Amino acid sequence: MIEYELLKKEKFTKARLGKIKTNYGVVDTPMFMPVGTKATVKSLTPEELYEANSGMILANTYHLWLRPGEDIVEKAGGLHQFMNYKGPILTDSGGFQVFSLAKNKEKDITEEGVHFKSHIDGKSLFLTPEKSIEIQNKLDSDIAMSFDECPPASASYEYLKNSVNRTLRWAARGKKVHQNKKQALFGIVQGGAYEDLRRYSAEETVKMNFDGYSIGGVANDGESKEDMYKAIEYSTPYLPEDKVRYLMGVGEPIDIIEGVIRGVDIFDCVLPTRIARHGQAFTRYGKINFHNAKFKEDFSSVDETCDCYTCKNYSKAYIRHLITTDEMLGGRLLSIHNIRFLIKLTEELREAIKEDRILEYKGEFLEKYLEEKYE
Amino acid sequence: MIEYELLKKEKFTKARLGKIKTNYGVVDTPMFMPVGTKATVKSLTPEELYEANSGMILANTYHLWLRPGEDIVEKAGGLHQFMNYKGPILTDSGGFQVFSLAKNKEKDITEEGVHFKSHIDGKSLFLTPEKSIEIQNKLDSDIAMSFDECPPASASYEYLKNSVNRTLRWAARGKKVHQNKKQALFGIVQGGAYEDLRRYSAEETVKMNFDGYSIGGVANDGESKEDMYKAIEYSTPYLPEDKVRYLMGVGEPIDIIEGVIRGVDIFDCVLPTRIARHGQAFTRYGKINFHNAKFKEDFSSVDETCDCYTCKNYSKAYIRHLITTDEMLGGRLLSIHNIRFLIKLTEELREAIKEDRILEYKGEFLEKYLEEKYE
Repeated sequence: MIEYELLKKEKFTKARLGKIKTNYGVVDTPMFMPVGTKATVKSLTPEELYEANSGMILANTYHLWLRPGEDIVEKAGGLHQFMNYKGPILTDSGGFQVFSLAKNKEKDITEEGVHFKSHIDGKSLFLTPEKSIEIQNKLDSDIAMSFDECPPASASYEYLKNSVNRTLRWAARGKKVHQNKKQALFGIVQGGAYEDLRRYSAEETVKMNFDGYSIGGVANDGESKEDMYKAIEYSTPYLPEDKVRYLMGVGEPIDIIEGVIRGVDIFDCVLPTRIARHGQAFTRYGKINFHNAKFKEDFSSVDETCDCYTCKNYSKAYIRHLITTDEMLGGRLLSIHNIRFLIKLTEELREAIKEDRILEYKGEFLEKYLEEKYE
Repeated sequence: MIEYELLKKEKFTKARLGKIKTNYGVVDTPMFMPVGTKATVKSLTPEELYEANSGMILANTYHLWLRPGEDIVEKAGGLHQFMNYKGPILTDSGGFQVFSLAKNKEKDITEEGVHFKSHIDGKSLFLTPEKSIEIQNKLDSDIAMSFDECPPASASYEYLKNSVNRTLRWAARGKKVHQNKKQALFGIVQGGAYEDLRRYSAEETVKMNFDGYSIGGVANDGESKEDMYKAIEYSTPYLPEDKVRYLMGVGEPIDIIEGVIRGVDIFDCVLPTRIARHGQAFTRYGKINFHNAKFKEDFSSVDETCDCYTCKNYSKAYIRHLITTDEMLGGRLLSIHNIRFLIKLTEELREAIKEDRILEYKGEFLEKYLEEKYE
């Protein structure tokens, strides 16, 4: 189980400082979780994550259900043992992947669950709220998510209203079969960018008394930043102060800052590792792209203010060489840097909350970040 | 510069125990060098190589000449600085790649050098003995190789005879322009599997007084093991005892043992990292392939006698999962293991030489290795 402790509320915003006690150590919030999709944060070892000061990481139930299968992970002694990660692990419900990855995006959503085809081999699959929880129980993560419907950003008010109700029924069904007593279970707030739906979804989910709450449906294709911020603003006021809040799938530095200001505690995103593999890095002065020829003879580090392994040991010129020649070490070094960048951002946000200066911090950060010194 | 010290000759074979003093520390021989083709041992950091107890590593002149170019490496402060490797580095001459990688293998070998087309973009290139040394001088490796012709395994006696003479003339030309006083320069013995040609090549190369000697032309496509062992046997008797001997491109465990028994000190090969990326690992009981379904629920380590990071922390089942789902960490973990396996093999060979029991060691090793417990 987990225990959330709210340590401080910032004076001028809804930002919160807290900590979560887990079976695998205490982690501080606000926190960014690197994503270990298939029980591996792409290209990195656990030791590299510890060195980046990672707290909790996320693994994807959908992917692990398909390969290697939850029974093998269970036989290995659970996810921590299987992947050798000694910090806390959160698993999602599989819902988001079912809705976004399913082959040809063909799916049949029924009250019972979702029929869809595997993105790997087209095999027919059926995921239900009960099955999602059963898989997560076997994976033995520290925090499990309720199975929710993730409607597209374009969904109508009517569609969303029905969907929110279905997600509530699914949450109740999942909670009923949740067996793993060491594992916390979170409910998920949906409702698009509609104030009344978010409020309704939050209030009804909270009534079920979960161990924590997620805000979902904000990282869909086509979702505007404005709608994302609205979705958060419309949800957090109705979530209890003594439970942790997790904004799913968000990892742009600016969005993390805006989320924290609106009362979010946890974030996750594939962004830092994905852009790394494409040769991009976060820096204090915005994102940079190593395919850019200007880095050919630039022997300075990726970000001179960064304390990560990559920045301590390698030049932009070397990383550009690795990226442009498709050498795996390039994506790996940039993954280390990008993950550390987001984790360090949350460390700085925690300091800013302590000092009641989060709006100043945001101003200082954005002034540099939007300068686009490099592009 | 380097200094080779012969510490002991084994009693019953030609095996030698020695050490090489370099600008970047002392390394023990017999030694296996991991290959860092484009200034990166694929997917690994220098720290991972140190942990595997690597001594010297190899980098490829041809690849670095093309990308990023020797001038950028020079501006970075040389290869050590560029790639952050604090141990000694050997560069090859580029000859082998010109002969094996050039686009469509079209090339025009003249007395002056070799005209060929880049394997990357088809651009016309011209590599000469002088140019090879000039590039290596700028790369600032600890040991440079003379530019040699690498004839195919199918070459006739007549062809090889002419080729050996050309390689001798090229060696003399390269030596003449060698400028980097911190860098050692090796000569290369060629001559296929012909005793008289190997002897002639060795004796004439030794007359030029290089800092060490390589045995080349043994890792070509189509070369038989028998011919490889002959090539070594016909070369080492004519090489001076007080200089180090390097067998180029050899890395099968059995070939390393046979090479050591015939008086070789240094080996290099892409094999451990290449087979790792294809999901294969060396073990005491032969090579294993992680695509094999039998490892699906095998929670033991890759090789229970191994002390590497991978074997200390991960199961076969997890590595199989990574390999079959194309996760980069799989190739990385197996690269760590495979490199450590070959380095540990050379450590054991050094112990066996100390105890004058290298033939017993070979027998014990092969008995297990050829058992094919897994396949």
